[in-house]
Amino acid sequence: MGSPVKVYGTPLSTAVSRVLACLLEKDVPFQLINVDMAKAEHKKPDFLKIQPFGQVPAFQDESISLFESRAICRYIVEKYQNQGNKNLYGTNPLEKASIDQWLEAEGQSFNPPSSALVFQLAFAPRMKIKQDEALIRQSEAKLLKVLDVYEKRLGETRYLAGDEFSLADLSHLPNGDYLVNGTTKEEMFTSRENVGRWWGEISGRESWKKVVEMRNSPLKH
Amino acid sequence: MGSPVKVYGTPLSTAVSRVLACLLEKDVPFQLINVDMAKAEHKKPDFLKIQPFGQVPAFQDESISLFESRAICRYIVEKYQNQGNKNLYGTNPLEKASIDQWLEAEGQSFNPPSSALVFQLAFAPRMKIKQDEALIRQSEAKLLKVLDVYEKRLGETRYLAGDEFSLADLSHLPNGDYLVNGTTKEEMFTSRENVGRWWGEISGRESWKKVVEMRNSPLKH
Repeated sequence: MGSPVKVYGTPLSTAVSRVLACLLEKDVPFQLINVDMAKAEHKKPDFLKIQPFGQVPAFQDESISLFESRAICRYIVEKYQNQGNKNLYGTNPLEKASIDQWLEAEGQSFNPPSSALVFQLAFAPRMKIKQDEALIRQSEAKLLKVLDVYEKRLGETRYLAGDEFSLADLSHLPNGDYLVNGTTKEEMFTSRENVGRWWGEISGRESWKKVVEMRNSPLKH
Repeated sequence: MGSPVKVYGTPLSTAVSRVLACLLEKDVPFQLINVDMAKAEHKKPDFLKIQPFGQVPAFQDESISLFESRAICRYIVEKYQNQGNKNLYGTNPLEKASIDQWLEAEGQSFNPPSSALVFQLAFAPRMKIKQDEALIRQSEAKLLKVLDVYEKRLGETRYLAGDEFSLADLSHLPNGDYLVNGTTKEEMFTSRENVGRWWGEISGRESWKKVVEMRNSPLKH
């Protein structure tokens, strides 16, 4: 066993918790190094060396240093392919292509409106930032269209990319969880039969429950 | 040789031209099947079967049908790894992780503001849609920050992911080309020494010149 991999950031961040869920699925030991964004630690020169955009997470494993949560997840599932959940990135090129497709759908179609809603509805009030009503309406309309596509797809397959839980599903957990449990918008998920069934399955995974636990008591980890 | 792969869409679309550039780099024969978006062909039931979001491109190769341009590119470089440009997705796991990282940076950081600017500055006037001045200002400010990160990075390496042209660079061509050649914003690229040098190298590739030629006379192809 080498040293644990290092994740820089806080589990309150959706991008950080995406990486943590992946590490837990893969049984990869990790060290979580807090980055205090209230103190702008993510904008300091030493941090910018490993994350030039000044965002979290940053990630280190042996000689490699990476940023961008979905790229980090891809690296983890390939580097640690022989341990933990071996289906996360498929077991053949066709499965992998389907996972890549739905992972991109998450990044390009689900993430923009859901991130905007999470910020506006869950974070802005706590940070005493005025909510942008027009952005909330636009984002909700966009997300509903995405969830309509998911509803149809999830009537055909158990998970987005096929019959196994994969990176594509996992990548929806951070924003999905804040929407379902941190806003009044949970019915966007729960009122749709197939999306609701899928959400129950993916959010009930041990890996994700552990991330939520870390998020709720971040200083213990 | 099997049948050529099929790409559904128009080369005027940035996402379609991303896939075309990748196919040309990999010397993969393809058939481009026009989807007339003015006639809403992308919203018809037969098309929605292969692209449930009603967007272009859709892609077919033998038994597989895919959407999402960056996922299609990943499939192409892996399926056709032994032909054409063999460096597009790296030749070892560390190179691949770096390419994934900068490809995600393109998708998550470069694409949103540059797509918004391309639409507002290049397409809205032709479509007689009123420009959104606030969105233009916000998008330009975001894109400038991204290009500042690129400027520093491209002072250290010839291309974004390292010393070889890769999918990460290629993925910037469609929006970059519209910004440089279809708006008055070209100096965002050309005024930065390293970004300007990089842009000249990547936009001068034969693959991309061919895509631009297809875009300028789409009905010939």
